[in-house]
Amino acid sequence: MTVHLVGVGPGDVELMTLKAARLLGEADAVVFDRLIGDDVLDFVSPTAERYDVGKTPGRPGPSQDDINALLVELGQRLDCVVRIKGGDPSIFGRGAEEADACHANGVATLSVPGISSSVAGPTAAGVSVTRRGVSSGYCVVTAHQDPDSSPVDWNALAACGLTLVVLMGARRASRIREALLAGGRSSSTPVAVITDATLPSERVERLALEELGRTPVESPSVLVIGEVAAEHLSTLAADTLGESQLGDELARALARAD
Amino acid sequence: MTVHLVGVGPGDVELMTLKAARLLGEADAVVFDRLIGDDVLDFVSPTAERYDVGKTPGRPGPSQDDINALLVELGQRLDCVVRIKGGDPSIFGRGAEEADACHANGVATLSVPGISSSVAGPTAAGVSVTRRGVSSGYCVVTAHQDPDSSPVDWNALAACGLTLVVLMGARRASRIREALLAGGRSSSTPVAVITDATLPSERVERLALEELGRTPVESPSVLVIGEVAAEHLSTLAADTLGESQLGDELARALARAD
Repeated sequence: MTVHLVGVGPGDVELMTLKAARLLGEADAVVFDRLIGDDVLDFVSPTAERYDVGKTPGRPGPSQDDINALLVELGQRLDCVVRIKGGDPSIFGRGAEEADACHANGVATLSVPGISSSVAGPTAAGVSVTRRGVSSGYCVVTAHQDPDSSPVDWNALAACGLTLVVLMGARRASRIREALLAGGRSSSTPVAVITDATLPSERVERLALEELGRTPVESPSVLVIGEVAAEHLSTLAADTLGESQLGDELARALARAD
Repeated sequence: MTVHLVGVGPGDVELMTLKAARLLGEADAVVFDRLIGDDVLDFVSPTAERYDVGKTPGRPGPSQDDINALLVELGQRLDCVVRIKGGDPSIFGRGAEEADACHANGVATLSVPGISSSVAGPTAAGVSVTRRGVSSGYCVVTAHQDPDSSPVDWNALAACGLTLVVLMGARRASRIREALLAGGRSSSTPVAVITDATLPSERVERLALEELGRTPVESPSVLVIGEVAAEHLSTLAADTLGESQLGDELARALARAD
């Protein structure tokens, strides 16, 4: 009778929360997208209904309206429905629209925070988005719209002096460079490009703003723009932590708690 | 030989990551502050050394230099040191300074992302900081400095049109109101004040910007300022999820994995 909008974090399954792990094990049905890894789905009870609503590039997938209708139907029929969201459900995940659809049809929702790649990407790669004396805040925007037609005021962003974190900016990297330079950001502003954040394939490139987008940026990447991008928080890559042996243990603990 | 800067999330112990839970169980020593709950410390191995470096209000506590020196000493002596950070270690946590001190003394560090209350607070309270057609991004700042002397450009923040999330803003709420009104934000801009975010004592007050700070704001509170603050993502309070029975199960699973 409740649709839970559950953030499962930025990619590394160990960056999922204990609450997300528990809810996946308790769910009567789960609804997920193409980018959700099998290691996350391993936490789902074998008896749960599973709905893959991923949009495969080049093929028509379910529309957002289809997904909303599915969530309403499941929420009216089942006790515990989990809509799995990458990152956090309130950050560029259309979670609010799905919640609206549920509410309009009498289905209760509950949002469960997860770690957004906008923060986990930099942190795991060793970039601290705030730093005493360097940056007293940060802004997060997407660039899946052209900076020229976007509702984001890139001039104001360039002027505010905070660290800027851009999601979905790979394809528009050169436009972002031009918008920020036009807004007055220095061409030497440090930039960190974090690709496949928190995954074993993660890589970090550091460059100056004037170089951003001169060569193609791979997707998915998180762009961190500002003085903090030149500094290092970690001296180790995340994958030196090693593979966790915990997955099975946790899955069993969660199953027992059902 | 590694100091792990580990974010343990915004308060609700179930919003800790699987990785944080595992590292707490593996740590030879943990270093923590006053605001870290006993339910987080329950994940620490009974044989680990424990260092409480919390600053009790009104009494002199360890300085940041003392804490840095402790981390270096532990990192040189022990295999796995965990510095526990509320929220995320790269967001207003002085994690970068502690990492710097370790690096300067040949101690490796690794930062492990956690959920920041800047995001978890709004999400758990049902406020989506981004929303299609309403807000295409958000900014996070602290207000522990007076807006008049702060390096944050409140005029530019007011102008950029993004959702504004303010941490540590309770005591300066009226100054924030004045700075944003002076920067051109409308007096009717919706505000959500989320106190004790994600804890059972969580409460949410919604008001207009012109009312912010007219009555005292309790601490700790997260302020969300922008059109999204008028909307609702959840229809349930987080604590209706019920108490988890999983703590002991997880602790046992983690202990076995040691």
